[in-house]
Amino acid sequence: MPKFTYNFNFGGQNSAVFIQDSLPGIEDLQNSGIHAPEDKSRRILLVCDANTQPIARKIQESSETLIPVCVLQSGETHKNWASAEAIIKAAREAGLGRDGLFVGIGGGVISDLTAFAASVYMRGAKLSLVSTTLLGMADAALGGKAGFDYLGIKNLVGTFYPASRVFMPLCSLETLPQREWKSGMAELIKTAILSDADFLNQIKTLKQGRENLDACIAKAVEFKGRIVEQDPKETGKMRALLNLGHTFGHALESAAGLGKISHGEAVAWGIARSCELGMELNITPQKRAAEIIALLNDFGYETRAPHPLNIPAEEMLKAMSSDKKKQNRTLAFIVPAPQGAEIAQIPDGSPLPKKIINRESQ
Amino acid sequence: MPKFTYNFNFGGQNSAVFIQDSLPGIEDLQNSGIHAPEDKSRRILLVCDANTQPIARKIQESSETLIPVCVLQSGETHKNWASAEAIIKAAREAGLGRDGLFVGIGGGVISDLTAFAASVYMRGAKLSLVSTTLLGMADAALGGKAGFDYLGIKNLVGTFYPASRVFMPLCSLETLPQREWKSGMAELIKTAILSDADFLNQIKTLKQGRENLDACIAKAVEFKGRIVEQDPKETGKMRALLNLGHTFGHALESAAGLGKISHGEAVAWGIARSCELGMELNITPQKRAAEIIALLNDFGYETRAPHPLNIPAEEMLKAMSSDKKKQNRTLAFIVPAPQGAEIAQIPDGSPLPKKIINRESQ
Repeated sequence: MPKFTYNFNFGGQNSAVFIQDSLPGIEDLQNSGIHAPEDKSRRILLVCDANTQPIARKIQESSETLIPVCVLQSGETHKNWASAEAIIKAAREAGLGRDGLFVGIGGGVISDLTAFAASVYMRGAKLSLVSTTLLGMADAALGGKAGFDYLGIKNLVGTFYPASRVFMPLCSLETLPQREWKSGMAELIKTAILSDADFLNQIKTLKQGRENLDACIAKAVEFKGRIVEQDPKETGKMRALLNLGHTFGHALESAAGLGKISHGEAVAWGIARSCELGMELNITPQKRAAEIIALLNDFGYETRAPHPLNIPAEEMLKAMSSDKKKQNRTLAFIVPAPQGAEIAQIPDGSPLPKKIINRESQ
Repeated sequence: MPKFTYNFNFGGQNSAVFIQDSLPGIEDLQNSGIHAPEDKSRRILLVCDANTQPIARKIQESSETLIPVCVLQSGETHKNWASAEAIIKAAREAGLGRDGLFVGIGGGVISDLTAFAASVYMRGAKLSLVSTTLLGMADAALGGKAGFDYLGIKNLVGTFYPASRVFMPLCSLETLPQREWKSGMAELIKTAILSDADFLNQIKTLKQGRENLDACIAKAVEFKGRIVEQDPKETGKMRALLNLGHTFGHALESAAGLGKISHGEAVAWGIARSCELGMELNITPQKRAAEIIALLNDFGYETRAPHPLNIPAEEMLKAMSSDKKKQNRTLAFIVPAPQGAEIAQIPDGSPLPKKIINRESQ
């Protein structure tokens, strides 16, 4: 039985989330709600990487028939067309039709790639996700952003394609490497900043132990889900708020070389920069900025500027200027407000972002 | 001034069609209706092939600033990821943001590729199409089907992504090669069969001269547009009707080797086969089938079975069995009814399609 269940509607597409202790079985994946029982004959493809192959195997074992598996190479550097192509090819070989079900088992990279492949396979096949990392549960698996990196730009190629069902099996976190923990925690912190003081206080308790983790994940899922329901394709301003820390963060990730700094670590650094920018623009109160940066430091994130990896500011500015959030030659930065956050539009070419990137930490 | 203008709404996305004598200028392309005037600064990328490069050049000349052009290799054999990638790369180099405008100038291949690239660029950029072939005007440019061929299967990879504006400049048909004419005419005939006796009679007059051509294109656009409005993503049964002749036709195209037989010629052969299948199933009256096949013969299409190219039936059946229209191990064939057409579901493995493919012509 799931500990928490949510049902979202993202632009007409139902997306159910199950936070539960155990892994889903094939029956759970099959029963996607939108299909009649006789549809159980439809073909399934599991997608995983070396890290989640043991989980894929357990799911396979829950089926009486042989379920094919496509094993991708791990990591951000393989988040490319070649991996998406491998999924499509495997689906074709496994005989999936337009009613076939793609199941992505893993963290953000696997989720994004599997969702992309499903979204373009025969112009859109069925999709379920099994999110096995904290980053996936706190952010990536929910809300339909799919895609891969190209020309050194994060998710330059992508679609919006919410999964019908997202499973978040807490047992998969038991073996999560420290780097992955840290990466996911940053997205949890980001969501708490956007949400309210209660959530932020609850996050603080995670420093001591993980008893509250399931409740924190549930809060993050509910908060993000409600925002994406209001603005599924980020055409309004609602969904853009979820990009707190991401304009600076993506720039750091890209300039460092994709995969070098984890997404969450880059986002945490970006949140610290957003606090500085918000203070500069008189949007973020000094007390609020100090509280957020102290929390990030507590969790061991790098918040200093310039970043100790000595990445030239010019490289980061170049990456920023090709950011997807750029419109009308203006860059959108999300900065913490007294409560939640706000969008700040900065004209491309303004000296402000460079100043913030380079500012010696206080 | 356009001779005919239509405004469709495909699942919440507005799509305007302009049938006019002359080419659109940059101003027409820019003024996409959904943008405020200050958005005119946004970047544009023209996409064409060697055949439509002169048209792209004329459109370029209508602009005071330099508009970049991406020139693809021509033909169905280049309808692949490499071409889509080339468009995405050119867009990136030209500095297009998410609000950038992709303009595909050409027939079905260019339309499908440009629309696909726009649909996945930063999770969805702006799109206009300039349809320069009869096939494009009668069918491909309208209704949002985007994609490319993979593993020998037509449009295995794709999305639904309607263009905001579709221009159909009749002047571009003046230099259209005979093979292209024939390919497009088949889609016009298909639409007339689905529509009504009046439209079918109007088509017959095109044998004598092309005076009625613009009105025929307008009728096809209106008919298809209204159908796609009701079922934009082919989830219901409405849009599937537009696939008349396509299950047999795609199988012939694929088995012959993509690009060997033109899409329209394959569809015409497929329509003849659908008539035979419809008679076998007591859906198509004999008189109706005879009238349709006579019309196809009048226009010089190959309607005989087995196809004189001696393509093994097994190859065609294999291609059919990987058709996107397959669901629940059942193949959907559209067959002419006393009026319009109907869907006939045939279980995969039924001997009927093979019989129809191989039947000696009567």
